[in-house]
Amino acid sequence: MTRNNFVEKEMKKVDVWKIKKYVCKVQPIDIFAGKNIIVLNEDEAKEHDIYSGYRTEVRIGNKSLIAIVDVSNEMIKAGHIGLYNDVMKEMKVKAGQKIEIVHMDRPKSLGYIKKKLDKESLNEEEVRTIVDDIMDDRLGEVSAAAWVAAAYINGFTDDEVVSLTMATYDSGEHLDLGKKPVVDKHCIGGVAGNRTTMVIVPIIAAAGAYIPKTSSRSITSAAGTADTMEVLADVIFDVDEVKKMVLKAKGAIVWGGGMELAPVDDKLIKIRHPLSLDPEGMLLASILGKKKSVGAEHVLIDIPVGRGVKIPYVERGNELARHFIRIGEKLGMNIEALITDGAEPIGNGIGPVLECIDVLEVLEGRGPDDLRHKSILMSGKLLELCGKCPKGTGYKNAEKLIENGKALKKFREIIELQGGNPKIKATDIQPGEYTYDVTSELAGHIYHIDNKTMSKIARIAGSPRDSGAGIYLHALRGNRVKAGDKLFTIYAESEAKLEFAIKALKGLEPIEMRKILLGSMQ
Amino acid sequence: MTRNNFVEKEMKKVDVWKIKKYVCKVQPIDIFAGKNIIVLNEDEAKEHDIYSGYRTEVRIGNKSLIAIVDVSNEMIKAGHIGLYNDVMKEMKVKAGQKIEIVHMDRPKSLGYIKKKLDKESLNEEEVRTIVDDIMDDRLGEVSAAAWVAAAYINGFTDDEVVSLTMATYDSGEHLDLGKKPVVDKHCIGGVAGNRTTMVIVPIIAAAGAYIPKTSSRSITSAAGTADTMEVLADVIFDVDEVKKMVLKAKGAIVWGGGMELAPVDDKLIKIRHPLSLDPEGMLLASILGKKKSVGAEHVLIDIPVGRGVKIPYVERGNELARHFIRIGEKLGMNIEALITDGAEPIGNGIGPVLECIDVLEVLEGRGPDDLRHKSILMSGKLLELCGKCPKGTGYKNAEKLIENGKALKKFREIIELQGGNPKIKATDIQPGEYTYDVTSELAGHIYHIDNKTMSKIARIAGSPRDSGAGIYLHALRGNRVKAGDKLFTIYAESEAKLEFAIKALKGLEPIEMRKILLGSMQ
Repeated sequence: MTRNNFVEKEMKKVDVWKIKKYVCKVQPIDIFAGKNIIVLNEDEAKEHDIYSGYRTEVRIGNKSLIAIVDVSNEMIKAGHIGLYNDVMKEMKVKAGQKIEIVHMDRPKSLGYIKKKLDKESLNEEEVRTIVDDIMDDRLGEVSAAAWVAAAYINGFTDDEVVSLTMATYDSGEHLDLGKKPVVDKHCIGGVAGNRTTMVIVPIIAAAGAYIPKTSSRSITSAAGTADTMEVLADVIFDVDEVKKMVLKAKGAIVWGGGMELAPVDDKLIKIRHPLSLDPEGMLLASILGKKKSVGAEHVLIDIPVGRGVKIPYVERGNELARHFIRIGEKLGMNIEALITDGAEPIGNGIGPVLECIDVLEVLEGRGPDDLRHKSILMSGKLLELCGKCPKGTGYKNAEKLIENGKALKKFREIIELQGGNPKIKATDIQPGEYTYDVTSELAGHIYHIDNKTMSKIARIAGSPRDSGAGIYLHALRGNRVKAGDKLFTIYAESEAKLEFAIKALKGLEPIEMRKILLGSMQ
Repeated sequence: MTRNNFVEKEMKKVDVWKIKKYVCKVQPIDIFAGKNIIVLNEDEAKEHDIYSGYRTEVRIGNKSLIAIVDVSNEMIKAGHIGLYNDVMKEMKVKAGQKIEIVHMDRPKSLGYIKKKLDKESLNEEEVRTIVDDIMDDRLGEVSAAAWVAAAYINGFTDDEVVSLTMATYDSGEHLDLGKKPVVDKHCIGGVAGNRTTMVIVPIIAAAGAYIPKTSSRSITSAAGTADTMEVLADVIFDVDEVKKMVLKAKGAIVWGGGMELAPVDDKLIKIRHPLSLDPEGMLLASILGKKKSVGAEHVLIDIPVGRGVKIPYVERGNELARHFIRIGEKLGMNIEALITDGAEPIGNGIGPVLECIDVLEVLEGRGPDDLRHKSILMSGKLLELCGKCPKGTGYKNAEKLIENGKALKKFREIIELQGGNPKIKATDIQPGEYTYDVTSELAGHIYHIDNKTMSKIARIAGSPRDSGAGIYLHALRGNRVKAGDKLFTIYAESEAKLEFAIKALKGLEPIEMRKILLGSMQ
């Protein structure tokens, strides 16, 4: 060891600041703050070098949690600590009980985040420490945001992605079916109406593979798979309930948020949300960590590319596909990635009820061609991937399960297990009663239908919260329309929301007609 | 305009989501949260798509502010809004008054921060929008942290630094003396005991230039200039008070935090603090924005380099110096930057009272050689910079003002104006009564005295809050000591804190002796 190393090591030892503690009586504050906040007497806290905004530990018995400090001299007298409902519940304490306030050390993860900001790569231990400190609330959101920004700008090495995937996996609950093969799928998103999951799951389960599918709710789209499935059945189940259902029906379609598969991911998403920051390494770790948590060995990734979705070009889609496969290999997962056309919506309906109708129609042997074709294609790939069909026979096999009604039967079994009405037909469900038809002003060919604009109009009309709100597309890309032909219908559950959606149309171009002159210059 | 540009422009118009409003009655909550928090009825907020953690505007008359939303069904009934003390004060409302809750648009600055994360440079308008959104609390800390991280990793162009400097300047109050020349100095910091400011200000003022010096309090060191000056006089004054004092005495030494010179900077520092992130562009804008706010035209920057301070090598110091000068030119400021030896403490005392004694001794014509020499050198440079002395005569002129007692007289005038005792002498002030001498175990030469370790021990002993706590160095680098010679004395104001500092010594090496064998390998 050189002398400098020795000195540096000695210097590090210095960082054992004495932990400061004091004891206070609990005074409940009847507010849910959405995070752990404690209120200390301002003067008393100052005595202990604790100020508003600090993160401090509170301890009682062997329970402890990290909370953000507020201060008050009026409301909280010396010797007392104000606890919000969130903390009262979490700590299971009562008014007047004594609780210990412990001032914290600087968390180690701060040093690792600084390292990443300095363009160095982190090892498994370092990534895990950051995840642990986020999970235990030792790390503030500001510091976690710096990590996300560093991940976005500097990128992650493959080893960092694997470390984060494993730390994500370890942070949550696991679904262990004890059966094989377990398959799963994931779509990168951005395509309106793209409800393939609700067709794929019954096909795969009917073919005999296990598919415990967790889906998300909508964030900026008109509907997530969880929102759409909720039209037909419950989607909120815990891990044990999902396990029971999948052991019976081989498939389930539930909301991922009902289980704690990747709690660290929920915290990171909250940080990534305002800036829509999706560092590729974090995206992969989030997706694959959850797939690993449900025990999936064979995973199909749908990467839609095109105008207006996250991945604009096929080349970029290929790059992402290769990244998924590389990380999958390191994790011992069998991954296939499909690059799909994502420029236009899939299916005719946009919004929970309208998308549900599309799905049921496809399973009933009718329905929109594009949704039917894409769902069968993906199901076929999955069946080949997990060895249920020889290569080249997947599509035919999947199609057959729709044609012979077995997929529909399986879907009804799944609906029943999830507490819905198993006799439901596409014609039984109705979208919102307030409607408005948008017609073509000119004759021509439809050149582009915009995912984002359509989602926006559907959301303004009320979806996904009003499940019957949304849009039904009467014409698709390439169709020839005459002046006055219906292009799409807006559905809403209240007149006010319909009016609002109609107003929002102004200045929007959700459907573009083909034009010859694209611009001019002088 | 090409067609794609047209479509993109149209798409942007879509982002006019209707602003959602509702009216509630004020219900005060007697807590100071340290930030603007409002509590809404959970069910009612949900009706308006507002959830815990959202940032929402509250309006009454022509007053408005942005607040973070908490929710409660128990404490806050529908039709009511809970306001913390911070918000009650800021909005000047009473219980029962009606207040409007307005759900906000996505702030524009989010797009600019994303642009910076994508390695693009921002123009003046974009930087200003980010600063405005931070100032008006439209931008959350998480997003501001992403901007800081992007600034750290991607760096700022000179134009971005100038834009941020001007936005910083515009965000705060200005000190306009209406006199010339106005000079200022700034030290990059990290050197224990480096209290040159308190010697320089009286010299410069005695020489006839104006020097309205704002200083900081300690963050991680044993004392800031504001903490040290506070031993002798008040340091908290507003802009008008400082102006009056400087017009009388030509100099003042006050705490920068007492004035609102760069409020955006205070918010950014809070974000940069946990990770000790000092993006160079933000550092420059912060320093020069404040100098501009006090009207300084001639500015001397002290850049200490060496082991353990921010700038480790002279080359890096030169780079930073050139950066300061370049930005200064763009701002119309006359800047000189000095690279100084920062590897060891300056002066003998570390901690407010002990540093004060050093300063008074130097002004009384005695005191530590290094502090005396550095202060005179810097004063001379400043006098030459602002044209009070011909080049090459600054040092002699500055030294003379110490030797003839004019600087001491001026310092006493400043102390008196700031409410202190103008008759004070170095021998009048006493450090803490509890002391512990650290002696040398071996004979040898002192090889290194560590700034950070010394500051840490002084802080553990109680400084800067216990102003009498700290360290007095008996031996300096290069000194030959015998076994048993006193190396330094620790001072504390309580026995407990002294004990704690003594314990902290274990495993520390604040003073290194010269060694021949630095390491070995096999």
